[in-house]
Amino acid sequence: MSRYMDVHSGFVGVKAQQLKEAHERDVAIEADEGVHFERAWLDPVSGKAFCLSSGPSREAVMRIHERAGHPTAEVYELPIEVN
Amino acid sequence: MSRYMDVHSGFVGVKAQQLKEAHERDVAIEADEGVHFERAWLDPVSGKAFCLSSGPSREAVMRIHERAGHPTAEVYELPIEVN
Repeated sequence: MSRYMDVHSGFVGVKAQQLKEAHERDVAIEADEGVHFERAWLDPVSGKAFCLSSGPSREAVMRIHERAGHPTAEVYELPIEVN
Repeated sequence: MSRYMDVHSGFVGVKAQQLKEAHERDVAIEADEGVHFERAWLDPVSGKAFCLSSGPSREAVMRIHERAGHPTAEVYELPIEVN
């Protein structure tokens, strides 16, 4: 299992409830790919969203996001982390 | 206080110990601006680093990173979050 950060663009003006619903669409199907979406953050001014997950591969994360209706090619594997 | 995500580029091949040291340089001076750096993640293949913080303003986060030797203009305010 690895950790991933994905970046989405174009979410200008999106509200908290919409981000919650988008996240819930990921979570509802994440088990199909062995992925777990941990947290998501949104800057509604720039439209950037960030999503932290863990899973078996970048492609698994991308497949869940695509099926949930918010595909992104920008998924980074994060083998290094500090707290 | 708001939450922020900043994105750094060009950290290709950086090791865990180097990210830890960079993070510690931020933490050593963060109180000067009322900022707190919570977590940082690195993809050493693409060279992208992500840093989650809280603080009074984007500019405060940017000043600490600049003084610590790793400036970035890419700092996003994150008023919306899901867990």
